[in-house]
Amino acid sequence: MTRKHLLAIFSCFLICSKILAADPLASDGDDGYRLWLKYESVSTASVKAEYLKYTTFITQPGKGEILQSASRELQMGLGKLLGKTVNVTNSSGGKTGGIIFRIEPGADTTKPAEGYQVQLSGGNIVISSKSENGILYGTFALLRHMQMQLPIKGLSIASSPKVRYRMLNHWDNPDGTIERGYAGQSLWKWYELPERVDPRYTDYARANASLGINGTVLNNVNASARFMSQEYIAKVAAVANVMRKYGIKTYLSVYFAAPKTLGGLKTSDPLDPQVRAWWKEKVAQIYKEIPDFGGFLVKANSEGEPGPQDYGRTHADGANMLAEAFQPYEGIVVWRAFVYKADPNADRFKAAYEEFVPLDGKFDPKVIVQVKNGPIDFQPREPFSPLFGNMPKTPLGMEFQITQEYLGFATHAVYEAPIFKECLDSDTYVNGAGSTVAKVVDGSLHGYARTLMAGVANTGNSRNWTGHPLAQANWYAFGRLSWDHQLSSEQIAREWIALTLTQNQKASGHITALMLRSREIYVDYNTPIGLSRPWMGVHFAPEPWQNKGSRPDWTAVYYHRADSIGLGFDRTVSGSNALAQYRPQVQQQWHNPDQTPLPYLLWFHHVRWDKKLNTGRTLWEELCTRFYTGADSVMWMQQQWDLAKPGLDLQVYAEVADRLKVQRREAIWWRDAWVLYLQTFAKQPVPTGFEPPKQTLEEVKKSVNVYLIR
Amino acid sequence: MTRKHLLAIFSCFLICSKILAADPLASDGDDGYRLWLKYESVSTASVKAEYLKYTTFITQPGKGEILQSASRELQMGLGKLLGKTVNVTNSSGGKTGGIIFRIEPGADTTKPAEGYQVQLSGGNIVISSKSENGILYGTFALLRHMQMQLPIKGLSIASSPKVRYRMLNHWDNPDGTIERGYAGQSLWKWYELPERVDPRYTDYARANASLGINGTVLNNVNASARFMSQEYIAKVAAVANVMRKYGIKTYLSVYFAAPKTLGGLKTSDPLDPQVRAWWKEKVAQIYKEIPDFGGFLVKANSEGEPGPQDYGRTHADGANMLAEAFQPYEGIVVWRAFVYKADPNADRFKAAYEEFVPLDGKFDPKVIVQVKNGPIDFQPREPFSPLFGNMPKTPLGMEFQITQEYLGFATHAVYEAPIFKECLDSDTYVNGAGSTVAKVVDGSLHGYARTLMAGVANTGNSRNWTGHPLAQANWYAFGRLSWDHQLSSEQIAREWIALTLTQNQKASGHITALMLRSREIYVDYNTPIGLSRPWMGVHFAPEPWQNKGSRPDWTAVYYHRADSIGLGFDRTVSGSNALAQYRPQVQQQWHNPDQTPLPYLLWFHHVRWDKKLNTGRTLWEELCTRFYTGADSVMWMQQQWDLAKPGLDLQVYAEVADRLKVQRREAIWWRDAWVLYLQTFAKQPVPTGFEPPKQTLEEVKKSVNVYLIR
Repeated sequence: MTRKHLLAIFSCFLICSKILAADPLASDGDDGYRLWLKYESVSTASVKAEYLKYTTFITQPGKGEILQSASRELQMGLGKLLGKTVNVTNSSGGKTGGIIFRIEPGADTTKPAEGYQVQLSGGNIVISSKSENGILYGTFALLRHMQMQLPIKGLSIASSPKVRYRMLNHWDNPDGTIERGYAGQSLWKWYELPERVDPRYTDYARANASLGINGTVLNNVNASARFMSQEYIAKVAAVANVMRKYGIKTYLSVYFAAPKTLGGLKTSDPLDPQVRAWWKEKVAQIYKEIPDFGGFLVKANSEGEPGPQDYGRTHADGANMLAEAFQPYEGIVVWRAFVYKADPNADRFKAAYEEFVPLDGKFDPKVIVQVKNGPIDFQPREPFSPLFGNMPKTPLGMEFQITQEYLGFATHAVYEAPIFKECLDSDTYVNGAGSTVAKVVDGSLHGYARTLMAGVANTGNSRNWTGHPLAQANWYAFGRLSWDHQLSSEQIAREWIALTLTQNQKASGHITALMLRSREIYVDYNTPIGLSRPWMGVHFAPEPWQNKGSRPDWTAVYYHRADSIGLGFDRTVSGSNALAQYRPQVQQQWHNPDQTPLPYLLWFHHVRWDKKLNTGRTLWEELCTRFYTGADSVMWMQQQWDLAKPGLDLQVYAEVADRLKVQRREAIWWRDAWVLYLQTFAKQPVPTGFEPPKQTLEEVKKSVNVYLIR
Repeated sequence: MTRKHLLAIFSCFLICSKILAADPLASDGDDGYRLWLKYESVSTASVKAEYLKYTTFITQPGKGEILQSASRELQMGLGKLLGKTVNVTNSSGGKTGGIIFRIEPGADTTKPAEGYQVQLSGGNIVISSKSENGILYGTFALLRHMQMQLPIKGLSIASSPKVRYRMLNHWDNPDGTIERGYAGQSLWKWYELPERVDPRYTDYARANASLGINGTVLNNVNASARFMSQEYIAKVAAVANVMRKYGIKTYLSVYFAAPKTLGGLKTSDPLDPQVRAWWKEKVAQIYKEIPDFGGFLVKANSEGEPGPQDYGRTHADGANMLAEAFQPYEGIVVWRAFVYKADPNADRFKAAYEEFVPLDGKFDPKVIVQVKNGPIDFQPREPFSPLFGNMPKTPLGMEFQITQEYLGFATHAVYEAPIFKECLDSDTYVNGAGSTVAKVVDGSLHGYARTLMAGVANTGNSRNWTGHPLAQANWYAFGRLSWDHQLSSEQIAREWIALTLTQNQKASGHITALMLRSREIYVDYNTPIGLSRPWMGVHFAPEPWQNKGSRPDWTAVYYHRADSIGLGFDRTVSGSNALAQYRPQVQQQWHNPDQTPLPYLLWFHHVRWDKKLNTGRTLWEELCTRFYTGADSVMWMQQQWDLAKPGLDLQVYAEVADRLKVQRREAIWWRDAWVLYLQTFAKQPVPTGFEPPKQTLEEVKKSVNVYLIR
């Protein structure tokens, strides 16, 4: 074979790859399916050479199925990173230059079993842990390290989870729809299960395990009783069989009235012996199919869902009955604190505290109460929920929302780590300064045995999992923070960008900047200075004027309280006094409108339109400034993204660039809606320097109506 | 470079491909996305050599965008089939060995402009047509020819569409859900549009154009008025811009009450001048954005939808008002005949005929009345609709349902070409023997100027488009039959299998057998001997006992009329006399229970349980035999599929094999439900030789209840 022949072969390759590039049916672009587990070929020769030296074998002791997952992941990862096949042995036989899994049961019971160490030892890379889960997490840590092309020399990673139950909550319905889902249909294909097990479930499990997530609630908290039927338990078991291999336990949301509607009993009263027996038997039936079943998640007596109060019982009565059914097993009961009664005179802000604090100490030890980060409902910005710190005898789990219900669906780029961190870092002052929400949640403040962080998932069957490519970062950030809430937003962003988008430094810088500012920009054009928007409907279009709802707290005007005098909800002693639910040091921060930081101002005060704020502007001027500069800043985001283009895959570039155009248009929509509506109260012109909206309030209302009509 | 080096290179390739094969994130299996446009490398050397000879260039006259699509498709297809890049020139310059597009305006106006010829001429392959669309269709015909590795020698394909409007109807809602969709969410991403245009729209257009489909109705017939807003028209225009490049016109379903709900008028009365003006202006507004807009599809006064009858007007009044708005344009109005009133004493079978036949001759020439294949609602088997042939002055379009609403969703394999053909080949006897439904629909019987065949789409955002891999064949079959209804079911199946699944003869034989029998097998376990099942709800689970509904004709018992004497709906003169809506020759076939072919028996007769049928069995015995053998035959389908395995991609094999397991389980479910329920009337044991159901009727009902409870 001559050089000419070889050239011919190579040009054939070139042509073939060109042809593929032109094929819209088999795009060569990054379709986002691989998430942060791309394992792209290591490009730096010296790094690659070093990696090759330490990857000559994998030693896996025993045949545990989670260890097998770790080996398989490592083989695949190394195969793609380094272009080599690595054999798995059950003993290193004294050789060096390999990767060794080492299970160390160890006497040190203070360390969580899921922690791991990855370090150079005796010429090998040793991944050690007390548990198979830990080995898997260590494996993903090593692969992350290598994907970022970091040196092996001096390798020493040690990490332990700060929270025990790290889980996703899927608000997925049995018909495949997802409540507040913006990335297609549910991943769970109930009609095909249990016979057909979609290979995608494995990739879902890998992605979660790579972050340390160890639990998943498959179905919506507005639960169907269907999941308690034998038919569905068999389907769930088939999914659980996949999850188990990656150290993930499967949970179900339950419909509290299932004993009646599915079981045919006359009541679902938690104190009724037959009801208790029904749940016991049901849980036993589940464990027969799913021996490592995780437990139940319950939304009860909330937004029309049935619950123990239907029978004059308390949340504790309901939760404890279920906990009793789990006594013989490892499983737990996660009981949501998201409750608020339809009382027109009440402040919804106070509802969860009022219902749950009196129950502190009354819950079975198997119960965790899951609390949303804020007192209302996943707003773009909320103060932390006053429940945190006020139930020292009851483990309180954190519920964050990853899916962008109030954050612009899948067309706005909002990096959520700053939202999560803002809440976790808030100081409750319960045991003096430094009593952060994080310390409540990780159990260190009150010594909870069971600790939990849950994220309402943003996944769907869209090819790229999350609809907006940048929304993958929110899944990633939630997972990483559920493992270690001390990571910074920037650290997580940089890590995610390197694994997912680009290792080009310049591009990474622009994208990091975009991500880190994105939440504040969104707040500025959407709900600045402590506004909120939990109004009825699809949560997509601006409706600050919405004043009709089946309940007063399902209107917009209930929250912003705009009138001729000013704007905002007085929650001080002169108003609802919700502020009294916090410790004095917190009250101190927020009780005086002159000293309340602007991000929280309208959360706690009704402020006069002409009040001078510490920015030197009146409230009206400041609002307009935020709405306008927020919408303008979307152009800055577009610019940052464009500057990053040289470091990006073109398909990913286009996906985001096009969505930023949508975001820009919709940011103006929000701006105009608020400005024109609030202007009817403030009765002042748009401040000089800002161009008044081109449309009238009636025109904006009409454009919103499009999303409300049949 | 030595042979050793080369070996090293090749083994590296082998290893790399092995690694890729082990990667669950980048499966090497066929994920079904490419449909029948896979263009896999031509494997037979002699064929490839011949193809190489005739593909040295492409000559494309002019820059028409549909011609560009044809060139692009050809370049991509040849690139993948032959591994070569082919240049596009605007003139062959007298060279030979290329592919030449030739637009021939021609004087022969009898031939449809969309017809094409592909033939060898002067040493080139010449694709000629009067239109750009025809060139595109000819291009796809040539590529189909080459994918099947057929010889170029003697190449001469000439084909013309028998029907003018060949379209898909998407029952897709603006929130992304699909009514009766079983393949994920809608392809149309309204929240991202118009800024982001999903590249998948192009692949959708390619797939349709490859079959000759030239129209698509983007939204559900239970229509949202939203689509008539300026916001949504802009979004639709962005989709239309993609479709146009492939000769596909975009249509919209309209909400008849839109003038009121969206336009703010006081009425939607079609005779009201303001209403007429509103629609005129609306249509003009659409044409401003979409100059080749296709037209409207309307479901009016049907199942609660608004319509002209709300104002005492007729369907013709409503349709003609809309047609008037389309006068200045090419667009048409497609008005559905799917109507039935809530009259407890009426036979729903007769409703469409009774409402529409009196209107014959009253419709504007721009109106096509779209009729479902059968008189009820897409049942597994129905007699043809008696409307066909009875409206000689009104173009009647055919509405088939591709999505498997009553055919087991995406878990049952049912090849639908035999359903479509059965209807098209039915003889109406309107102008004597041979007056088939096909001749009504293609206009040859009554000389309709506008002819239409529509299929309710089975597409969704699932990676493989249709959920069940074999359901792709139903999209394919619909498209091919809408072009040429004379193709046989087998011919289409063989073609689709060769393009999509395998060219292995043995495997193809097994799959063809499976597909051709699949519909009869489904009918046997689901609705044998003329049973039907248009009951309420999700249309998934067996509910023959369902006797409560908001309307009598929304119960199961209304249709099967089981009692202690027998089973079936008497539609002869002694019953509803629906049979009188057919010509005497048709009545002749079906009026006598002793002579009615078994597939239609219970459609027209109430038959005694102990009546001996021409099979030698009583009705009860025959029913049981069908239910049991039907369910058994699913095992035969499994066997055929397993026999085909050596010729199949393993991922596709597994996808179907797993679903066949579901189908087998659900077939038994249907069998047991019917047998146990009908037994309460027939009061006879399951015939000897068949094992009685293992479950009781109550148990089956309970298992169905799982799908009905909250």
